[in-house]
Amino acid sequence: MEIIGEKINGTRKRVARAIAERDAGFVCDLARRQAEAGAAWLDVNAGTHPQQEPGDLVWLVENVQAVTDTPLSLDSANPKALAAAIEVVDKTPLINSISGEPERLGNILPLVAEHGCCVIALAMAATKIPETSAARVAVVHKVMEATRASSVPDEHVYVDPLVLTIGTDTCSGLTFFETLRAVHAAYPEVHLTAGLSNISFGLPARSYINRAFLTLAVGAGLDSAILDPLDQDLRATLLAAELVLGRDDYCLAYTRAYRAGVFD
Amino acid sequence: MEIIGEKINGTRKRVARAIAERDAGFVCDLARRQAEAGAAWLDVNAGTHPQQEPGDLVWLVENVQAVTDTPLSLDSANPKALAAAIEVVDKTPLINSISGEPERLGNILPLVAEHGCCVIALAMAATKIPETSAARVAVVHKVMEATRASSVPDEHVYVDPLVLTIGTDTCSGLTFFETLRAVHAAYPEVHLTAGLSNISFGLPARSYINRAFLTLAVGAGLDSAILDPLDQDLRATLLAAELVLGRDDYCLAYTRAYRAGVFD
Repeated sequence: MEIIGEKINGTRKRVARAIAERDAGFVCDLARRQAEAGAAWLDVNAGTHPQQEPGDLVWLVENVQAVTDTPLSLDSANPKALAAAIEVVDKTPLINSISGEPERLGNILPLVAEHGCCVIALAMAATKIPETSAARVAVVHKVMEATRASSVPDEHVYVDPLVLTIGTDTCSGLTFFETLRAVHAAYPEVHLTAGLSNISFGLPARSYINRAFLTLAVGAGLDSAILDPLDQDLRATLLAAELVLGRDDYCLAYTRAYRAGVFD
Repeated sequence: MEIIGEKINGTRKRVARAIAERDAGFVCDLARRQAEAGAAWLDVNAGTHPQQEPGDLVWLVENVQAVTDTPLSLDSANPKALAAAIEVVDKTPLINSISGEPERLGNILPLVAEHGCCVIALAMAATKIPETSAARVAVVHKVMEATRASSVPDEHVYVDPLVLTIGTDTCSGLTFFETLRAVHAAYPEVHLTAGLSNISFGLPARSYINRAFLTLAVGAGLDSAILDPLDQDLRATLLAAELVLGRDDYCLAYTRAYRAGVFD
């Protein structure tokens, strides 16, 4: 299971301030702690105006790279910001994200193909997330047609089936799991990822819902997740899910994490 | 999801003492609290020597029935104790349990058939739990042949695929889920149940493992479980699993439980 560390995100107030004030210490600390907690990728999102974004994203990349070797997930819908950041990354990045929207696909996919990047593909075409699993899978087929036409190998693609809150749609979890299974069946080499916490938006006792959703998603084939690697409860939940699903030989990862205090 | 409350069990020291001393208050309190916590059945197990067991089980049944209407799960491998208890129950009970062992099947199944009881069927023939899912399913086929021959309707049967600790077999969870799915596919009317906590026997941080296992088991079709209904964490886990699996319309059960303090 690859964790994409979500904390360096300029849409969060405290991170936005650090970017505006060029507070490298704050950003480097977030990078170091997420990397130490086992993140496979560190997401960097400047979250600023299109004109500022290329400079801000490059500043984030350079500072994060100064303290960790963990590869980066460049999180932007702005081709200029992505192009500028790709020029300064040390390791081939993950691009977050393309979708079925023709403009986004046309602007970002060439960068992905040219630089041999990995890429997150959202199962939506316009600004609205399709309600049914069939409609999301249809979008994924279109996107995969495009990535294959651009010679991006399937194993470089991370499909995000997208999660809506169960507060407004009782079947939201089922739709997600169905999409996950259908994409896995059609494209067995493709990675499956998601931002998870939307599932519980607007509901009480969210941690129980997030845990159940993460556990069932891992069971349904999720092999990557965008989350806070410093959240010990989610890490513990992941370790337990993989243990119960027979993916932890001799319980080594679980017992090691126990000794390291992850379950405290 | 039907919870079979496990607390009135004479193999536990404190309960054994209550039975020996005819401490009705202790037993009634356990019964009342489990019923109030939503148990669908209350398991009663005297856990005493074969000669004493009929009298002890009848004493348990009479006392539990004095304080709650919840039907009972008569937990014994002793046909005499079961026959005596069946004579005094107010509501048709669940018999816990038969297995593929010919003697047990021959002694207990006639009681089940005669009194129209529900029955738990363990997926084992002798004293050792079969290692593979195929071997467990083979036992279930034999048992189902016998229950059908005795005209016990499939929906009265609760199959327990049996859980071994993951500490000695990495695939123990997978074997359980496979058995669950295979039994459900072959006998869609049959209920699926389990005692869950064995999965984590001998491992640290057991609550995380038990939670992950319960969540994945509910996803794989478990519709009943033998557990402690007073364990708020397990109840909360169950509620979250059912919510995420689209089985809680308008999130009513979840939000009601939240207001009742289940997640505190």
